[in-house]
Amino acid sequence: MEKDIFASISPLDHRYYLSYQELFDQLAEYFSENALIKTQLEVEAALTRILARRGICPESVSREVDEACQSIRPEEVYAEEEKTKHNIRAMVNCIQRCVSVEARPFVHFTSTSMDIVDTANALRFFRATNEVVLPGLKRLLETLIKIARREKDVLQMGRTHGQHAVPITFGFAVAEYVSRLGNRYLKIKEAAENLRGKIAGAVGAYNASSIFFSDPEVFEAEVLAELGIKPSPYSTQIVEPEFLTDYLHAIVSAYGVLANLADDFRHLQRTEISEIGEEFATTQVGSSTMPHKRNPWNFEHVKSMWKAFMPRMITVYLDQISEHQRDLSNSASSRFNPEIVVSFAAAVERLNRVLSKLRVDKERMMKNVELTQEYVIAEPLYILLASFGHPDAHEAVRRLTIKSQETGKTVRQLITTDREHVDPELLTYLEKLSEQQWEILNNPQAYIGLSVRKTELICDRWEECLRSQ
Amino acid sequence: MEKDIFASISPLDHRYYLSYQELFDQLAEYFSENALIKTQLEVEAALTRILARRGICPESVSREVDEACQSIRPEEVYAEEEKTKHNIRAMVNCIQRCVSVEARPFVHFTSTSMDIVDTANALRFFRATNEVVLPGLKRLLETLIKIARREKDVLQMGRTHGQHAVPITFGFAVAEYVSRLGNRYLKIKEAAENLRGKIAGAVGAYNASSIFFSDPEVFEAEVLAELGIKPSPYSTQIVEPEFLTDYLHAIVSAYGVLANLADDFRHLQRTEISEIGEEFATTQVGSSTMPHKRNPWNFEHVKSMWKAFMPRMITVYLDQISEHQRDLSNSASSRFNPEIVVSFAAAVERLNRVLSKLRVDKERMMKNVELTQEYVIAEPLYILLASFGHPDAHEAVRRLTIKSQETGKTVRQLITTDREHVDPELLTYLEKLSEQQWEILNNPQAYIGLSVRKTELICDRWEECLRSQ
Amino acid sequence: MEKDIFASISPLDHRYYLSYQELFDQLAEYFSENALIKTQLEVEAALTRILARRGICPESVSREVDEACQSIRPEEVYAEEEKTKHNIRAMVNCIQRCVSVEARPFVHFTSTSMDIVDTANALRFFRATNEVVLPGLKRLLETLIKIARREKDVLQMGRTHGQHAVPITFGFAVAEYVSRLGNRYLKIKEAAENLRGKIAGAVGAYNASSIFFSDPEVFEAEVLAELGIKPSPYSTQIVEPEFLTDYLHAIVSAYGVLANLADDFRHLQRTEISEIGEEFATTQVGSSTMPHKRNPWNFEHVKSMWKAFMPRMITVYLDQISEHQRDLSNSASSRFNPEIVVSFAAAVERLNRVLSKLRVDKERMMKNVELTQEYVIAEPLYILLASFGHPDAHEAVRRLTIKSQETGKTVRQLITTDREHVDPELLTYLEKLSEQQWEILNNPQAYIGLSVRKTELICDRWEECLRSQ
Amino acid sequence: MEKDIFASISPLDHRYYLSYQELFDQLAEYFSENALIKTQLEVEAALTRILARRGICPESVSREVDEACQSIRPEEVYAEEEKTKHNIRAMVNCIQRCVSVEARPFVHFTSTSMDIVDTANALRFFRATNEVVLPGLKRLLETLIKIARREKDVLQMGRTHGQHAVPITFGFAVAEYVSRLGNRYLKIKEAAENLRGKIAGAVGAYNASSIFFSDPEVFEAEVLAELGIKPSPYSTQIVEPEFLTDYLHAIVSAYGVLANLADDFRHLQRTEISEIGEEFATTQVGSSTMPHKRNPWNFEHVKSMWKAFMPRMITVYLDQISEHQRDLSNSASSRFNPEIVVSFAAAVERLNRVLSKLRVDKERMMKNVELTQEYVIAEPLYILLASFGHPDAHEAVRRLTIKSQETGKTVRQLITTDREHVDPELLTYLEKLSEQQWEILNNPQAYIGLSVRKTELICDRWEECLRSQ
Repeated sequence: MEKDIFASISPLDHRYYLSYQELFDQLAEYFSENALIKTQLEVEAALTRILARRGICPESVSREVDEACQSIRPEEVYAEEEKTKHNIRAMVNCIQRCVSVEARPFVHFTSTSMDIVDTANALRFFRATNEVVLPGLKRLLETLIKIARREKDVLQMGRTHGQHAVPITFGFAVAEYVSRLGNRYLKIKEAAENLRGKIAGAVGAYNASSIFFSDPEVFEAEVLAELGIKPSPYSTQIVEPEFLTDYLHAIVSAYGVLANLADDFRHLQRTEISEIGEEFATTQVGSSTMPHKRNPWNFEHVKSMWKAFMPRMITVYLDQISEHQRDLSNSASSRFNPEIVVSFAAAVERLNRVLSKLRVDKERMMKNVELTQEYVIAEPLYILLASFGHPDAHEAVRRLTIKSQETGKTVRQLITTDREHVDPELLTYLEKLSEQQWEILNNPQAYIGLSVRKTELICDRWEECLRSQ
Repeated sequence: MEKDIFASISPLDHRYYLSYQELFDQLAEYFSENALIKTQLEVEAALTRILARRGICPESVSREVDEACQSIRPEEVYAEEEKTKHNIRAMVNCIQRCVSVEARPFVHFTSTSMDIVDTANALRFFRATNEVVLPGLKRLLETLIKIARREKDVLQMGRTHGQHAVPITFGFAVAEYVSRLGNRYLKIKEAAENLRGKIAGAVGAYNASSIFFSDPEVFEAEVLAELGIKPSPYSTQIVEPEFLTDYLHAIVSAYGVLANLADDFRHLQRTEISEIGEEFATTQVGSSTMPHKRNPWNFEHVKSMWKAFMPRMITVYLDQISEHQRDLSNSASSRFNPEIVVSFAAAVERLNRVLSKLRVDKERMMKNVELTQEYVIAEPLYILLASFGHPDAHEAVRRLTIKSQETGKTVRQLITTDREHVDPELLTYLEKLSEQQWEILNNPQAYIGLSVRKTELICDRWEECLRSQ
Repeated sequence: MEKDIFASISPLDHRYYLSYQELFDQLAEYFSENALIKTQLEVEAALTRILARRGICPESVSREVDEACQSIRPEEVYAEEEKTKHNIRAMVNCIQRCVSVEARPFVHFTSTSMDIVDTANALRFFRATNEVVLPGLKRLLETLIKIARREKDVLQMGRTHGQHAVPITFGFAVAEYVSRLGNRYLKIKEAAENLRGKIAGAVGAYNASSIFFSDPEVFEAEVLAELGIKPSPYSTQIVEPEFLTDYLHAIVSAYGVLANLADDFRHLQRTEISEIGEEFATTQVGSSTMPHKRNPWNFEHVKSMWKAFMPRMITVYLDQISEHQRDLSNSASSRFNPEIVVSFAAAVERLNRVLSKLRVDKERMMKNVELTQEYVIAEPLYILLASFGHPDAHEAVRRLTIKSQETGKTVRQLITTDREHVDPELLTYLEKLSEQQWEILNNPQAYIGLSVRKTELICDRWEECLRSQ
Repeated sequence: MEKDIFASISPLDHRYYLSYQELFDQLAEYFSENALIKTQLEVEAALTRILARRGICPESVSREVDEACQSIRPEEVYAEEEKTKHNIRAMVNCIQRCVSVEARPFVHFTSTSMDIVDTANALRFFRATNEVVLPGLKRLLETLIKIARREKDVLQMGRTHGQHAVPITFGFAVAEYVSRLGNRYLKIKEAAENLRGKIAGAVGAYNASSIFFSDPEVFEAEVLAELGIKPSPYSTQIVEPEFLTDYLHAIVSAYGVLANLADDFRHLQRTEISEIGEEFATTQVGSSTMPHKRNPWNFEHVKSMWKAFMPRMITVYLDQISEHQRDLSNSASSRFNPEIVVSFAAAVERLNRVLSKLRVDKERMMKNVELTQEYVIAEPLYILLASFGHPDAHEAVRRLTIKSQETGKTVRQLITTDREHVDPELLTYLEKLSEQQWEILNNPQAYIGLSVRKTELICDRWEECLRSQ
């Protein structure tokens, strides 16, 4: 059934579809209704294939079912569902209509709807993750590593509470996201590989299959192995929900890392800070009335999408509860789960696009450092004084910074050229400083600790890790 | 752009679209991307109309703009947005291309994008509520009133903690939802009518419009009145977010009432309780493997949809925060808000469908009452004893119920025919009971308090209220 | 039972208790376990008082119960609960032990636990709101009004997307919060006044009370009127949950306004912006290692508390569901609801404290305006050109700003003294500008629209409104 | 500071403290404010200990600091914080006051507050998990295993959608929770062991420590190893937040399993089902007015606590975002995180208490099975017919169940003794059934699949796993 996309309701099906058409078409291979039904048919086909392999039915039956499962289209299933009011029964009816009378009994043999539904869902998330989500995340990680390496020496003021703290390098700041996103990459991968299926029947006790097999658990494992996944260690009518819960937590917590990056980067674009910028097309408009605006709208967009999708974890946690051997109140809700993954993949893609062309303004970063560098030495000064035994170094330096504000002289001036404002006791400690230590105080811009080395270390580690992925 | 609906991502755009096609087509008049752009164009047209009315531009210009706004299609706007990367600027460009050189300056005159966006959104929610959501809710209320009246005398056991408590009538139980949903009806209406627009410019201070008007606030009010809404009492680049927050709270809290009803009704369908049933088509299938199943799947579905959409209030609360005169991080997220309303309207429709054909099994309700009616008199017995001055009536009756369980005799037997197990002191109190009072103890089924009267009262009240809507 | 507060678990009972001791002691009058039990006893006393007034029991009985209810201490109730495993039964037992044999029957007469619990809770929220929350909010509003008036002329750059947009005044920016918080003030008040009680018995059908009264609904209304509240229009074992849901929504949505204010103000304290500052005690430490830091920690704290408490609305929405005439699964969860109100009141108090001593740096605000004022005129220039019929004014000015960046000359220079870079066609339009209009272009700092007037208007409106509160 | 616990605000500090006093006292060793400060002091002591081990300061200094850290009480730190408005600086001042002038410089040497705070928090969660949470969970698992084994043969009807499906055993139903909770046990353990600390300084780049050490990362690892944890792979001012996010997800998702169990078990206590019961003390009161009630209040309580605490994951996800090298807006919010763990441990304890004394009513379970056993055979009948090649077995059997409802004869009667209602074609298939297969149809109670074997398997697996814990 064809429809104008602008008549659809979800922004994922019009606006954001158009923004990421290629990506969304790829993801639709797993997450559209077409894909859902296709994957469920694939499970049905695998089931009959194993029946044939075990000699329960002839190979020809399995081939018939295979072909039927490849030919059925969603429209047919929906038309049949009109009658049955039951989607999987409708699908089974469709398959049966396509095969010989001999083959019909071996369609859906001994299984319950949720065997097909849960198994197909595990497959969809697993495959989309492996084939689209992780590769996209890998590309973003590679972009971040590239930026971190390129900017590893570029001085930037470290900020805590929005206040200048002590200096780092911009590469070091970017390395944060290499490490956090890298760790999420592995978490998502692990959780996706741990998604489970089931072929355990109506209440999970293999009631029907145990009439025909002495080893219904082995049969279950064989069908699932055919599809590339493992069975739930225990099933009711459904797979233990925690496997999916963990997977979606991995996605949502990775989304949080993207949101943090987006927040950092949009703030670095504030007019007063202006250390970075999104690339701006020459025909692009920043504002409908303020022609001069250059907004960090891609970073804002990613933050916004996270706000839209992160709260859906509540639905996922609510869906952990299913009464007795199952109630259906997790059915409609879980149909929306793929949207979390789709929007996450789109956010990854958007960040990769915009970061690939990120403008970094090194001069401005330096200017910002210079704004407060005279205060920066407060930290090393206090620590050096302490190391020489000053009994209350922190307080002494805190007073020095207040004095600096009062007199308009820098802390450095107060401890070097304009010592008249300084407590004589403090001076005795200052005399203990070695030449090397004075160098640090005289060059606040060198006070960046391991910024460079750590950036390299993080980049090396993740580059190697990704190489093996 | 036409697309196979089964290739779309959101279940609202395939599966649930097909379940409620008529309703969704109605809602798409407000909530599709077509509708969004159409409504934004309507705001632009109203703006120019007021300019003409004030003599700032000729009437002919306003007519030109009106016509342009009616002719522009989303595809054109999206094509233009490719260039501008700014959706409202793209729309303005499209309008300007359709009008004479003379008219162009008066398109979007003095306004900022968010004047158009926020005003159009207020309109969309307001209109969809008035024209679709509230009428649907009214129909559901009417159905509930009809059931409550019809079943007002049908005895049902009241249940607390899933345990039998004291009897009511089924009509009285349904009246709960008449009252709660009725109150939500009014809340939704009030909140929808209080949605606000703005024509206050880039930062809300009428910077641009005050160059041309001495009364820009009056101008704003005129444009909005033309569209049928009122201005925000204060604006930054955006309307005060609380108007929309209140509206979505009204929807989500009404959704909670639906979910409670759905939960109650699906539990009343439990095999062991079986007091009600969803109508079942003769071709309908309850389970793909258990052909005998009759599942309360519509009620389960409504509960499930609530689980999917209720948590989105978190997004709405997050969107209350917008930095300074606005940041864009509420833009993408708020594009998903209509989904809450669409899914709510669908849940209302589904409940109305299924409740219209609800099967009520009065015999079974009576049988369930009979299960425990002998315990029911514990409450009136304790209260009557107390009223005659028994110093510890609750404890005395509690012991009586334990005695009843031990002896297998009913509490009624213990206090009438088999008094040998009863404390002599208690007997002296029993003798004080009037004949009328003994009647209550002898007929637990009469112990339903005001169930009937209150049901009528609630139905009368809301019938009258809805008549004036 | 006395205990070291540092041994308690909740930060509300140690750390934040110590930060707001006076406020918390006030709130404990409504929200501690002492207060809960005291209020429940008050409901029991009111119930017996109405019984006496109706002649069901002698006045002396009512006096006895009154006295008992004033004397009972939580410890006793808890000790009794050890035996009964039921808190309200325990309380009733305690009262009965304190009164004469004659009075005992009239304690808790015909009511169920939830009559007492729900009524007491409505009272607690209603009173705490009236007596602590709203007065605190009023003080904060007064502080904000004072700042808005004081700063109404102080030029500040308006910011959208974190980017400079067009100028406003700082007073105008503060007026946003006067308006939004003012509206929330009224919402909270309305919702608190609409909280409801019930005396409708075990399943809400007045089963027990209708044995003794022909008008049990009137009896219910009388008891509740004695306490100052109204009955739920319908009750099961509990009051319709939506009254409390609306109240907590009002609180949580007001919390969101505080969080937005906190976010704005902490960003205005960023080193590069530095337009405002929290007052800093001379002994205060900004950082344990960076003695020079001056962090906006109070604003950060308020944002953080909002993050902790806003998500609890999910619990409130979940608690709308109670099976049949009630299940208990909303009992423990709703015991935590007062924490939302307590933490909100504390956030209000904290903001009032810090805003009362807010440092505003007008010079810095002006310097920030000057940073970009040359771009600001892009907006009025584009609109003026448009008003004179320039067919594509936005695009023309957008190009001008790019030209400005390329040449290093301001837009103003480009259109006045250095016109060689400007399109001749544009010049023809510029010639149409009146002197007055050139003034605007020559003085971007005057381009603040109605900032001053609107600030006054908002302050006037809310000052008047609060005066009547 | 001593205070009446009934004056505290959080139910965790009065009501639930009193319910689980021993457990809460244990947890207070990690999660009270006392414990927080004690653990932070422990980190400070470990830091100085490593300084001594590296020869940066004498052993005597380390001993002095050790002793000081053991002697300081929260009151002192809070009193000092009054002055500094900074909690960690206050603590450092307190330590320094307790040690010699020589030792002072080596207190907090080169570290920033968050080095101490984050490390102490990781330690608290890690230790409480190991020493209280996991042992409690293990006890609950052992109780569940015991019940599952004991009830492994006890027939129970499997239920889907609240409807009878096909039979299982009660032990099998309990095994679900052995498996799901067992898997959560491992998840919690893994996440707790992966919590990380940091000693990386103000912005995570080891700025200060690298003045004194050539290997500040090794120094960091040494301090943390002294405490038993590992460093964050990257730090800003704070540890990568995902380690804690994962841990709290593990707790919250385990909480969901408890809530599901609680829901199942309270529904099994419904009057009409009555298969299990909470043990009831002889003095216990079910209802304040209905002396006969036996409510599943412990299960309701656990569900309710989950509703209160699960939504707090939103706060945890929000706390993933911290601007640049950190903003403080995750500080207050994260102080409430321990409450999630405390309430979870209490729910585990409560479930263990109530399950240890669970009453199981086998006769009632059997009666419930008998209610619908005649329908149960629909599933094996359909599958057997299918296996013999019936082309539309599901539909044939579905019609048979409708026929059964119409005629009042069981499906079994229809296919055996009363075959006149059965389609002749169907009869030809029935004749193909073997004697063994007829046995299944004649004894629906045997249709329990692998219920017993799977129960044993799950119990064996987890018993073995727990043995090694």
